[in-house]
Amino acid sequence: MSSTVQSRVDATSTDLTPAMLELGVCYYPEQWPREKWPEDAARMVELGLDWVRIGEFSWSAVEPEPGQFDWSFMDEAIDVLGKAGLKVILGTPTAAPPKWLIDRHPDILAVGPDGHVRRFGARRHYCFSSRTYFREAARITRAFVERYGHHPFVRAWQTDNEYGDHDTIYSYSAEAERAFRLWLENRYGTIDALNEAWGTRFWSMRYRHFDEVDLPLHVVEEPSPTHLVDFVRFSSDQVVQFNRQQVEIIRAGSPGRPVTHNFMSHNIDFDHFKLSEDLDVASWDVYPMGGLINGRLPDEEKARLLRTGDPDQVAFNHDLYRAAGRGRVWVMEQQPGPVNWAAHNQAPADGMVRLWTWLAYAHGVDMVAYFRWRQAPFAQEQFHAGLLLPDSTPDQAFHETATVAAERERLPKNRQRERAKVALVMDYESRWASRALPQGRTYQASAICLDWYAALSRHGVDIDIVSQESDLEGYALVICPDLLIPNTGFIERLKASQAKVLFGPRSGSKTPDMHIPDGLPPGPLRDLIDIRVTRVESLPSPESETVLHGNRSFAAGTWRETIETGESVLATFTGAYRPGSPALVGNAGVRYLTALPSREWLDALMRDCLDWAGISWLPDLGDIRLARRGDLTFAFNFGTEAKELPIPANAGILVGESYLEPAGVTIWRHI
Amino acid sequence: MSSTVQSRVDATSTDLTPAMLELGVCYYPEQWPREKWPEDAARMVELGLDWVRIGEFSWSAVEPEPGQFDWSFMDEAIDVLGKAGLKVILGTPTAAPPKWLIDRHPDILAVGPDGHVRRFGARRHYCFSSRTYFREAARITRAFVERYGHHPFVRAWQTDNEYGDHDTIYSYSAEAERAFRLWLENRYGTIDALNEAWGTRFWSMRYRHFDEVDLPLHVVEEPSPTHLVDFVRFSSDQVVQFNRQQVEIIRAGSPGRPVTHNFMSHNIDFDHFKLSEDLDVASWDVYPMGGLINGRLPDEEKARLLRTGDPDQVAFNHDLYRAAGRGRVWVMEQQPGPVNWAAHNQAPADGMVRLWTWLAYAHGVDMVAYFRWRQAPFAQEQFHAGLLLPDSTPDQAFHETATVAAERERLPKNRQRERAKVALVMDYESRWASRALPQGRTYQASAICLDWYAALSRHGVDIDIVSQESDLEGYALVICPDLLIPNTGFIERLKASQAKVLFGPRSGSKTPDMHIPDGLPPGPLRDLIDIRVTRVESLPSPESETVLHGNRSFAAGTWRETIETGESVLATFTGAYRPGSPALVGNAGVRYLTALPSREWLDALMRDCLDWAGISWLPDLGDIRLARRGDLTFAFNFGTEAKELPIPANAGILVGESYLEPAGVTIWRHI
Amino acid sequence: MSSTVQSRVDATSTDLTPAMLELGVCYYPEQWPREKWPEDAARMVELGLDWVRIGEFSWSAVEPEPGQFDWSFMDEAIDVLGKAGLKVILGTPTAAPPKWLIDRHPDILAVGPDGHVRRFGARRHYCFSSRTYFREAARITRAFVERYGHHPFVRAWQTDNEYGDHDTIYSYSAEAERAFRLWLENRYGTIDALNEAWGTRFWSMRYRHFDEVDLPLHVVEEPSPTHLVDFVRFSSDQVVQFNRQQVEIIRAGSPGRPVTHNFMSHNIDFDHFKLSEDLDVASWDVYPMGGLINGRLPDEEKARLLRTGDPDQVAFNHDLYRAAGRGRVWVMEQQPGPVNWAAHNQAPADGMVRLWTWLAYAHGVDMVAYFRWRQAPFAQEQFHAGLLLPDSTPDQAFHETATVAAERERLPKNRQRERAKVALVMDYESRWASRALPQGRTYQASAICLDWYAALSRHGVDIDIVSQESDLEGYALVICPDLLIPNTGFIERLKASQAKVLFGPRSGSKTPDMHIPDGLPPGPLRDLIDIRVTRVESLPSPESETVLHGNRSFAAGTWRETIETGESVLATFTGAYRPGSPALVGNAGVRYLTALPSREWLDALMRDCLDWAGISWLPDLGDIRLARRGDLTFAFNFGTEAKELPIPANAGILVGESYLEPAGVTIWRHI
Repeated sequence: MSSTVQSRVDATSTDLTPAMLELGVCYYPEQWPREKWPEDAARMVELGLDWVRIGEFSWSAVEPEPGQFDWSFMDEAIDVLGKAGLKVILGTPTAAPPKWLIDRHPDILAVGPDGHVRRFGARRHYCFSSRTYFREAARITRAFVERYGHHPFVRAWQTDNEYGDHDTIYSYSAEAERAFRLWLENRYGTIDALNEAWGTRFWSMRYRHFDEVDLPLHVVEEPSPTHLVDFVRFSSDQVVQFNRQQVEIIRAGSPGRPVTHNFMSHNIDFDHFKLSEDLDVASWDVYPMGGLINGRLPDEEKARLLRTGDPDQVAFNHDLYRAAGRGRVWVMEQQPGPVNWAAHNQAPADGMVRLWTWLAYAHGVDMVAYFRWRQAPFAQEQFHAGLLLPDSTPDQAFHETATVAAERERLPKNRQRERAKVALVMDYESRWASRALPQGRTYQASAICLDWYAALSRHGVDIDIVSQESDLEGYALVICPDLLIPNTGFIERLKASQAKVLFGPRSGSKTPDMHIPDGLPPGPLRDLIDIRVTRVESLPSPESETVLHGNRSFAAGTWRETIETGESVLATFTGAYRPGSPALVGNAGVRYLTALPSREWLDALMRDCLDWAGISWLPDLGDIRLARRGDLTFAFNFGTEAKELPIPANAGILVGESYLEPAGVTIWRHI
Repeated sequence: MSSTVQSRVDATSTDLTPAMLELGVCYYPEQWPREKWPEDAARMVELGLDWVRIGEFSWSAVEPEPGQFDWSFMDEAIDVLGKAGLKVILGTPTAAPPKWLIDRHPDILAVGPDGHVRRFGARRHYCFSSRTYFREAARITRAFVERYGHHPFVRAWQTDNEYGDHDTIYSYSAEAERAFRLWLENRYGTIDALNEAWGTRFWSMRYRHFDEVDLPLHVVEEPSPTHLVDFVRFSSDQVVQFNRQQVEIIRAGSPGRPVTHNFMSHNIDFDHFKLSEDLDVASWDVYPMGGLINGRLPDEEKARLLRTGDPDQVAFNHDLYRAAGRGRVWVMEQQPGPVNWAAHNQAPADGMVRLWTWLAYAHGVDMVAYFRWRQAPFAQEQFHAGLLLPDSTPDQAFHETATVAAERERLPKNRQRERAKVALVMDYESRWASRALPQGRTYQASAICLDWYAALSRHGVDIDIVSQESDLEGYALVICPDLLIPNTGFIERLKASQAKVLFGPRSGSKTPDMHIPDGLPPGPLRDLIDIRVTRVESLPSPESETVLHGNRSFAAGTWRETIETGESVLATFTGAYRPGSPALVGNAGVRYLTALPSREWLDALMRDCLDWAGISWLPDLGDIRLARRGDLTFAFNFGTEAKELPIPANAGILVGESYLEPAGVTIWRHI
Repeated sequence: MSSTVQSRVDATSTDLTPAMLELGVCYYPEQWPREKWPEDAARMVELGLDWVRIGEFSWSAVEPEPGQFDWSFMDEAIDVLGKAGLKVILGTPTAAPPKWLIDRHPDILAVGPDGHVRRFGARRHYCFSSRTYFREAARITRAFVERYGHHPFVRAWQTDNEYGDHDTIYSYSAEAERAFRLWLENRYGTIDALNEAWGTRFWSMRYRHFDEVDLPLHVVEEPSPTHLVDFVRFSSDQVVQFNRQQVEIIRAGSPGRPVTHNFMSHNIDFDHFKLSEDLDVASWDVYPMGGLINGRLPDEEKARLLRTGDPDQVAFNHDLYRAAGRGRVWVMEQQPGPVNWAAHNQAPADGMVRLWTWLAYAHGVDMVAYFRWRQAPFAQEQFHAGLLLPDSTPDQAFHETATVAAERERLPKNRQRERAKVALVMDYESRWASRALPQGRTYQASAICLDWYAALSRHGVDIDIVSQESDLEGYALVICPDLLIPNTGFIERLKASQAKVLFGPRSGSKTPDMHIPDGLPPGPLRDLIDIRVTRVESLPSPESETVLHGNRSFAAGTWRETIETGESVLATFTGAYRPGSPALVGNAGVRYLTALPSREWLDALMRDCLDWAGISWLPDLGDIRLARRGDLTFAFNFGTEAKELPIPANAGILVGESYLEPAGVTIWRHI
């Protein structure tokens, strides 16, 4: 399924390559008296904001009764904001259809994995396969576009809001079942092809017609992994199709305005690359405090980073969505203080909002919008901070935004993030594959991928995230932590590239039909490296095994493979079980790891690979992180102690000091 | 909603201020052959029991077929017990409607939070909103009252049994949805008022009619907190109304007999104060062993107190229900030995049944009934001990009851619990507010409240629990650990009072509509103390933060607030985040805490507040607890080591020794 | 309910007492191209395999359309395998009915304990009470038997597959409710008898008719334990009846072929003894790696035994199913390498497949079949190892099987396992009783039973598992770890026996109606030993209590009883609670334990009991295990260190060395 969307933003339209970081804010005029709007708008501009996002939960305000539109508040809000000098990002309001619509068409509601209808009362209460909702979403989008498509103050669009939030991609409704069967028929053509792919001769699961196939709900045991992965592929395609309908309506009716969507990072329930093909800019919502708490780090690191967050989780996602947006990435919601939804909700350290803003810019983000202008004193998110307190006095983030707005004046303009030397491959299909067949609870692909990214980051190396479809030219090192299902094009481009390549365990271990490849894993990667994986194990702990690598002993665990290989053995397992078995093998251009390294080994391994690829690196930076954009270098301190930075003598500091305080930012320019 | 119940027990009726502790037992004549009854009754009297509770699960015995009553067993049981000299507490049997009634009217059944009908097979299988059951409960209550309302041996009534046991307050049935909509219409008058209160302009949740509002079931994300709290208020009111119907029937048909209900302590699903307004006496069911296991204490304390229980959880609830009963409190079920329902069920230490009985009396309880007379050898509770073993031989509690019965002869009569100097405010609405918006899993209001109570108790201080409606006269110190929604009357009474006041964090942080108050928290409390809470955080552990208080450093955590204040700063945060930020502030009469103290700080803080309020206290008593009733002082040893008691020289010991053994009780009189 | 099955395997039929261990493999011809079959069959024979199991998931291949049979593949497969020299075990395919059958008869599907229909998509998607499925299972079984009942290559039958896998015994469907009511009517005759047994006078639960009784689903609190246990008895009987139907069809149509079923060990949801009465051989499926992970051992032991497994869990089940099979036991599925279904799936140490095979033989197993011939590269179990890798190259287990096949030639023939001196009683009804009324989460009967078995095993003692129906002749010691419901016949046989008897706590504590027996526990066992249990407690940890036994102090916990006794006190509790209370009492022939011992005490206790019974034992073997079959002794090393074995001077080593390596096997013969 490739994008059918034609037109792109042209040169006369909204400029997507601003000379300097732009700032914005999320605003909800429907939540405040109209009298407050002019003052709010004036203060936004005074603070240095360029953009304001509105409208994404406005449906019941705009269409309070079926078919009766009241545009007055939206007209006035856009007018007030625009006249004050703000560019408006208008959200389509489809994330929260009104109650009257639900009551008229209960088939809009999704059904959860517990078999119960997911009901009205919050947001995202719709099934992507509901034909009624597909039609209604078009109707309301068209109404918005007809009214504001050519509005001079409306400078960009956001479709819907946070697809997938609260596990809303998968629905087990009758509508979803109907659509899934059609999707399968479309994919397989014949039921025999499906039977072959799903392996239904196993356990007598054979189907005679597509109409016999059910959604994978309440099955006694695990269904076929291909059944599961196809359900994910189908669900992902439903989201892409739902989004594309809106993009097409907007493109047709609002020329020159870029379209974006604000992704939830770490959601892997649909293919963010594929959906982004229809967007002009990828956006994402940055909540580092919850990202820490829900994240992969051990408890002691979480305690140390309590108020600064995981240094790498945020940067990783900037890089991911920069790839998804083909270089164009915004932050649509930047956490401004404590929020309301995690298991606990600590405040960020003072300075972190500024730090995160510069971190975004350093990683290629061109616009950072804070969520939200003013903290709401009612409803679900009243503990979610804003730039202003509920009584309109400035909160901490307001002051930090002002600092950023001042600091950006000191930077040279038109700096762009250059291609990194390291590419890390992120593949949604592979992620779905390992989720459908985890083969043990200890294998967590998202955590593994982030661990590998972090090990490189700790050594001061810039990284590009790439998909299998990406151009690989110019990379010196390509890292594939969990590429279970490599595709032919990617392998061909790897072969054509000069890059050194490191594959993690499980690479190439599944065909697109979720089978073990002929000739055993790594399947088609055997064109690149001569190995044959004859046994895999999942293990209870990251210290289950030990390896010897370059005369040093390291811990490994949670996954281990036994291989046969004609390649050089670069590291071996020690210990009681199959001592001497290869842990890392490789040839001139390609290496394959049969284990999941402990942190220490991972650091050593990445240094080794960087040397191999001829990429320079710095000694472990601890809680400091560096990033480069053009000739600018940014340093960030996520730790609790100040550090002297390794600034070259010929560099000119533009912001900050060489002695970097906790939560501090220093920016210098190479001369 | 105020009580419509008129008549109260008059002077010629059952005496609710007995001169000395009365004892009772729960008995189930329907479970034993009639031949056993006379001997059982004789042994009860011989043991020193005054009261016997019967009947609360007797419906299917009394009305075995629809409309066909068989009163013979109940007539005879009351006759046998009464003639033996026992006063009968008769329970209405509505906690367990018969199967034939359920099969005729399936709409009686509740629906659980999983969306499934909660079915027959145990007890409490009814929905408080079922109109059918409301009518049927009236019918059976009327039948009981018509037959026994004037019976000379029936001296008190219990309505139903343990409202809320097994999470039975909340029902998601069609009947509940219908009733909730009516309740909302009654509360708000117009749908616009509801929309305003619930903040439905957030997330496009606006309603056009009350009939559009659903129960908060299977909502995709959290619904509006006001939606949640209103559902709790509604559910609580349904229980109050259900209970009131029975009280009115009893009052009309059984003059002079007090009405009680046996509450489950620690259940906060409905407002026990409000329901108690319709009662003459509040009762509760005392199970300290399960209270320990399900309670808040850390594991090592649970191990130490394994067979004696949490010293404060029981006392707290005596004080709570003494408040609910406006001074009149009974124990309707006292644990007599190991029971059957906790994660594990250890035996109490020998002596504890006696100890708990005297503890009740010391805290103002006038009647303690043991559950149950004889252990049942069949059905669900066959592991629940009684005074007798299943073969009718005495179990440990039988002997301890005999000891109590003898010891009470040694005490002077007519001693009443005096008003304490410390009042601790318990507010159900506030509890519902923090449960609906916990803002982090680490904030547990019930545990906090009990921690504060315990810190005072460890210093030998008597405490009254009060509601916001209580008269505050005479208190020197008022403690509000979690008063999120203070009401005007309470604030006025505080102002008029001479008492020093300590507020915990979150105090005044919500309006009754669950909004952040105008001018920020603590909202209306800003009349009492000049602070403005500008940031709140929930934190992972009780040791996340450190504070400096009076030159000592303490740990704090799980909750922290940043404030602006014009008051004196009495303690400050130290550490990396916002050092110097106030942790405790106050003026001459009012103090506010911005953190949740660790145990050590809590102890120091409470000593400090007691000094401030001019209340004397004792050094930490460890596992000893003291309580006073009139001129009597009671000492209880919950620990594993004997202790010499600080008995004044001029006191006369009436029971026990000054050297108090584990599980021991000593009682002395001030001369 | 006794078996109605008449005919047994006769002397002219398949020989169930082979002279030497036979080997086999599970094979799925429907999963592989026909071209592969001849080579597969030839390699099986060459490897030394005697048996091949096929067909148990073949329904949709055999009957692809309703009523249209295609026998060609099965005909050919049997032909190819048989002609190669293999004996075929043919499975009835009822574990996985085809989708078309489900769509025609949705009443076949079971309903889970969550109230949701358990849907098609894997296997075991049927309700044992479905009348439709009972009929359909007969139809397909009859079709198989009609075609292959007299086939010369079909030498045995397996009914269905792994009854109870994935919690499939209990169904809450309408069909199950209907059948349960009939079963109850059959058991009780009158509803009054049910009311008496269930104790429905408790909580007003009385029924007027059998049609009023529901399944124990979504009950507000726990239903009557008798209700629960009767539901288990009913469900167990439904499985037995379902299986019996197949056995009867096979017996009638396939004379001389033994019938077996492959049990899931540790499933206690139905009575494996009772079902086995209809079988000629009991089989079970041996997966020690998952058995370790899901098992009872503490984490540090799990780490040490990571790749060898729990030494006793496997042996216990060999002994259990040897009892169930009345001496005839097969392993139908032997784990050959890493599998796919546990929380993590480590590889067995090299050598373990051989070790487990010999362990089986040593415990009386006559045939070990490996699961499976070739690893499947598709569907749910593609991570499940086989003898061959997916590309048909040999995996580790292939080589180890070859080793076993060679080694068996060195052993003398016709050795049979002799009756052990120790019998350990396993009783499913008692297990259901303690599960229905656990009285604390810390009481885990299966773990207790295995702990006791292991303590004996560590001392080199052979054990027989017996049921209450077993002949006790010849045993010197009978161990009853959890015999809650002893029956009269068993007690009479105990009295008649010369064996010493040790009872664990809770023995005799329930009548068959789940009541406390008259005269208190241990009820009918009071004929054997003079005690009266007056109090029971469940405790938080195995170290809650201490006891003094023979001048040594030991830890105990999780369960404790207070008794009155006229017997000698052999051990006493120490500590604060009731010090001096008996922990072990006994007379010349019978002992009763009032506690659950820690491992140290258990070891000492078992040594003491072995001495008492005159049975010799060895010092703690650590991770070595011994087992005897005839004059052969087998030693197995489950540990990580080699050990010198205590081989008698006059023994002749047949396999292995006296210095036993990890994962090693040594076999010697007494001369």
